[in-house]
Amino acid sequence: MSDQEAPLVNGVEHMTCEALPFVDDDYGGVIVEMKTPMDPKSFVAALKYSFAQWRLQGKKGVWLNLPISHVNLVEPAVKEGFRYHHAEPTYLMLVYWIPEAESTIPLNASHRVCVGAVVLNHNKEILVVQEKYGTLRGTGVWKIPTGVVDEGEDIFAAAIREVKEETGIDTEFLEILAFCQTHESFFAKSDLFFVCLLRPTSFDIQKQDLEIEAAQWMRFEDSACQPITHKNDFFKAIHRICSMKMEKSYTGFSTKPITTFIDDKLGYLYWNKQEEMNNSIS
Amino acid sequence: MSDQEAPLVNGVEHMTCEALPFVDDDYGGVIVEMKTPMDPKSFVAALKYSFAQWRLQGKKGVWLNLPISHVNLVEPAVKEGFRYHHAEPTYLMLVYWIPEAESTIPLNASHRVCVGAVVLNHNKEILVVQEKYGTLRGTGVWKIPTGVVDEGEDIFAAAIREVKEETGIDTEFLEILAFCQTHESFFAKSDLFFVCLLRPTSFDIQKQDLEIEAAQWMRFEDSACQPITHKNDFFKAIHRICSMKMEKSYTGFSTKPITTFIDDKLGYLYWNKQEEMNNSIS
Repeated sequence: MSDQEAPLVNGVEHMTCEALPFVDDDYGGVIVEMKTPMDPKSFVAALKYSFAQWRLQGKKGVWLNLPISHVNLVEPAVKEGFRYHHAEPTYLMLVYWIPEAESTIPLNASHRVCVGAVVLNHNKEILVVQEKYGTLRGTGVWKIPTGVVDEGEDIFAAAIREVKEETGIDTEFLEILAFCQTHESFFAKSDLFFVCLLRPTSFDIQKQDLEIEAAQWMRFEDSACQPITHKNDFFKAIHRICSMKMEKSYTGFSTKPITTFIDDKLGYLYWNKQEEMNNSIS
Repeated sequence: MSDQEAPLVNGVEHMTCEALPFVDDDYGGVIVEMKTPMDPKSFVAALKYSFAQWRLQGKKGVWLNLPISHVNLVEPAVKEGFRYHHAEPTYLMLVYWIPEAESTIPLNASHRVCVGAVVLNHNKEILVVQEKYGTLRGTGVWKIPTGVVDEGEDIFAAAIREVKEETGIDTEFLEILAFCQTHESFFAKSDLFFVCLLRPTSFDIQKQDLEIEAAQWMRFEDSACQPITHKNDFFKAIHRICSMKMEKSYTGFSTKPITTFIDDKLGYLYWNKQEEMNNSIS
């Protein structure tokens, strides 16, 4: 496009009077995903033209997905009234709410989800590791394998994956024993930490070198006797729950695949199935 | 600053050789929070100067918090090698990993957390609403109050808040009966939906007009007889769990305030306390 001004039609440049590419979302809004490079001037013209159409069509929310390669369009978009919604390393999602009525734009993700894996074998031993990084680095503390649940990953699957990655041990998921919610884990975001009970199906440890200093099967009693277990509420509670579980006097939440009430989406229900004698929902 | 080029010292403009304001984080990195307006040219010069210092000091991650009013600095930051980390309506957080070693930058929040509130009174009635918006709008379906857990909000507190907001009913939290995880709830993010059992401490409904079409106490049996309960796995499971609970043959997870293993942070543990006879951890 030349630097010369193009003729204006209702304040919109005539030469670029093409709408931005978009698809409808399920909530009366549109999603614009920028894929080909565009200069800011053409982008703003196309945006204005598109908005005129969307307003006529009664559209509500306008989502604008800008890959990081389109960073040149962030400033013009914000100047046209877009606000940030969320971002991932490779893209920034902006949003604009058209109607006068209050916005029903969904909130951004607020929680990181982590798992800790309690893996107990038939010899009353627990699978523990020492980490190369993190707050317990160099303390000599033996801890259960832990990790972050990926976007789109099931909690039970993340527990199985982390154990395999850190120790090479194969496992089956049994129950969520308990979970913990904390806040301001990083910036304003909150954490949910799920303690999962797993049954090992292999026993030879192949530790991962990148993050793990050492890994072993440790007598459960010895693991419970570490000073940190007594000093810290959380470790104490988890060891007490494991003890009860080993005495078969504790029930956590099991999984059940389910279709949820929104759009018949597939998911997993975590619930206490122990007392469900007649098996009517499982 | 004039448009004329300032003299260069090691490629950095001499006139702007001041470091950006920053604070250290707890993991060997720094956090830059831009508060005063800055033009892109001065910003890039200050950034280069700061990076030279941070490299000498062995700093790892560099967090750059750009309020939306500083949108003019997003493109220069990305061109200097920053990547997006997360965004909220009012700011964009970018990050740069300095070391050769693999990045230990924490992942972004991946889950939205929602609650549904089962409020049962002594007459075997359940508190239900009809919504003005959402997928069940206009269907005549009576459902439990639901809502999104805010960043920094406890799950049990969110359930109490949502019931109060939608129906005016005061409640006490008893248990999490079950929860459900689903994926791709909006874009690539996942959802966790916690079903909470609450005891009402007031009974006169004052429905909220903005989102709620109608609210009432409904015989639990009638609520369970709605066609949607039979058609949908999730509603069916929740009603079955509530039935068991009313027959005192189901235990969910109760709360226990706790200090967690990271930084002695305060949080809540959710666990099955029923079988904890000797009360040793509660």
